[in-house]
Amino acid sequence: MTETNTRVLLKSRPEALPTSDNFELDRRPVAELGDGEILVRNVYLSVDPYMRGRMNEVKSYIPPFVVNEPLEGGVVGQVMASRNDGFSEGDWVSGMLRWENYSVSDGVGLTKVDPGIAPLSYHLGILGMPGMTAYVGLVGVGEVQEGEHVFVTAASGAVGSVVGQIACNLGCRVVGTAGSDEKVAFLTQELGFDAAFNYKTVDSPIAAVRRACPEGIDVHFENVGGGLFEAAILNMRPNGRIALCGMIADYNTPFEELPPGPRGLFVLIGRSVKMQGFIVFQHPELCKEWVVRAAGWLREGKLVYRESVAEGLEAAPRAFLGLMKGENFGKQIVKLADE
Amino acid sequence: MTETNTRVLLKSRPEALPTSDNFELDRRPVAELGDGEILVRNVYLSVDPYMRGRMNEVKSYIPPFVVNEPLEGGVVGQVMASRNDGFSEGDWVSGMLRWENYSVSDGVGLTKVDPGIAPLSYHLGILGMPGMTAYVGLVGVGEVQEGEHVFVTAASGAVGSVVGQIACNLGCRVVGTAGSDEKVAFLTQELGFDAAFNYKTVDSPIAAVRRACPEGIDVHFENVGGGLFEAAILNMRPNGRIALCGMIADYNTPFEELPPGPRGLFVLIGRSVKMQGFIVFQHPELCKEWVVRAAGWLREGKLVYRESVAEGLEAAPRAFLGLMKGENFGKQIVKLADE
Repeated sequence: MTETNTRVLLKSRPEALPTSDNFELDRRPVAELGDGEILVRNVYLSVDPYMRGRMNEVKSYIPPFVVNEPLEGGVVGQVMASRNDGFSEGDWVSGMLRWENYSVSDGVGLTKVDPGIAPLSYHLGILGMPGMTAYVGLVGVGEVQEGEHVFVTAASGAVGSVVGQIACNLGCRVVGTAGSDEKVAFLTQELGFDAAFNYKTVDSPIAAVRRACPEGIDVHFENVGGGLFEAAILNMRPNGRIALCGMIADYNTPFEELPPGPRGLFVLIGRSVKMQGFIVFQHPELCKEWVVRAAGWLREGKLVYRESVAEGLEAAPRAFLGLMKGENFGKQIVKLADE
Repeated sequence: MTETNTRVLLKSRPEALPTSDNFELDRRPVAELGDGEILVRNVYLSVDPYMRGRMNEVKSYIPPFVVNEPLEGGVVGQVMASRNDGFSEGDWVSGMLRWENYSVSDGVGLTKVDPGIAPLSYHLGILGMPGMTAYVGLVGVGEVQEGEHVFVTAASGAVGSVVGQIACNLGCRVVGTAGSDEKVAFLTQELGFDAAFNYKTVDSPIAAVRRACPEGIDVHFENVGGGLFEAAILNMRPNGRIALCGMIADYNTPFEELPPGPRGLFVLIGRSVKMQGFIVFQHPELCKEWVVRAAGWLREGKLVYRESVAEGLEAAPRAFLGLMKGENFGKQIVKLADE
């Protein structure tokens, strides 16, 4: 191969909100394939909030990114050459690969995807990690039941939009928040939410949640942190469950400068509320269950899925920065090449 | 009966920390027994932190106290007269009764206690609600396993001291906090805790917890709230459990004036930690299991139990105020009369 491989490196660790200075592109020849390896032409990259955590040098459930090495994330690509019996030229795969045009992989952690069941990029979103996260959090951790009251923050995002639609499909009353009136309209008019509000324009998050959820909340799916999180806690119903999925508001802040946490956690005692953090990869059975269920719902038109597509690897850092500021609308991906 | 019945009334609802002005004594004749009723001579009263919540006019899992009516709490007493087939004169009973010398009851919610298995007052503490709370929180909610790292705040108190001893008996490494050096010595020297510290004299709760729990915390039993709660959260191990039992630090504060909540709740996500509030009465099977287990451990000398005894009904309000300030050492009770 004499193709050139462009890569997106982490040039430096962000102190707070990342900037374009934290990223750098480099170009090098595509590596030769060793025994057992495959060459993947990356076509779609996934851009996700959790990646911010990996930019810090802290122990977590996945190791931090390495400075001057490529970022890594969800990728859908096509096998161009294979010296691995598990993969053939032409196969479509998804999994965690580097942010680059061509990846050499030993195939571990890659799964073949069927290009026939849905558009290929869906495997980065509604059929991939964000969709699985929604299902694991709402059904596994949240133990949602038909008819319950469900509240979700960042509800127009890649995870939140799926949480809300699963809950709607299961016969729940569903309320969400988003950061623009356009997104709020999308929730109620296109996704079927029962109520939604723009958290940026409410005076009091507590009063806003109480108005939107007058009977309280059985299952809260937490994506954001901050004042909305506190408001959700105070509005929990007895025996409620809070699925802690993300707190994007806190990812960019050093610990000493973190804003105060939610007051009123003691209400969880008298109401016997469970709050549980979770990592999607620790629930592989539920993930498999989701892909089957989601493919069915997609065929039946019971899931709406919206993507925000950036074009070209060079656009990936900007897409990530936009995500941190809530500029995306729907699942943020980067398209590197034509299928 | 021509005995006089002295009662402790809630004279007014406390705004913040209660004062003696919120209580009043009155005296009246003991009521006549109706059909199905029994007369109980109250001998021991239980003084508990959760009673502070009932002094506010808020909906909770038990109704608020009524102004100008007697307080209510755990009582051990003896049946003096009975017009109820379930109880005979001379029976010892425990249950929720009013703060008064003589109670007339229809027997609902009262259980007979065997004066032979342990001192009678133990049914207000280690064999009663506080002991059951420890067991339900640590074993039921906390799902504690042999060899795990357990952390408990207010560890010399009625609940915390039992939590720690259960954990020790189950082969865990146990760390606790208390508010005086004397109490800290009690934890390590008499109760068998592996480590303990005085939270009032540490500079940084986060650093203090890290030093005392260098390998982190599998099960945290939360009794207090505030900075120690935050420190425990930050030191949780992967798949840890937090049993939310009480937050005495927050009970005396109106919501608008509540101190900030714990920062860093997002660590619960990456570590898949569960935090769960609970009410002991919702776990009746575990409560029964505890009484059997505790009676055995008491016989074998595997449980140390310490009481702080106030003498006479008139001393009950002062005992409650002292409890709110952490002045008690061990389970706070009031002895109303000789057995």
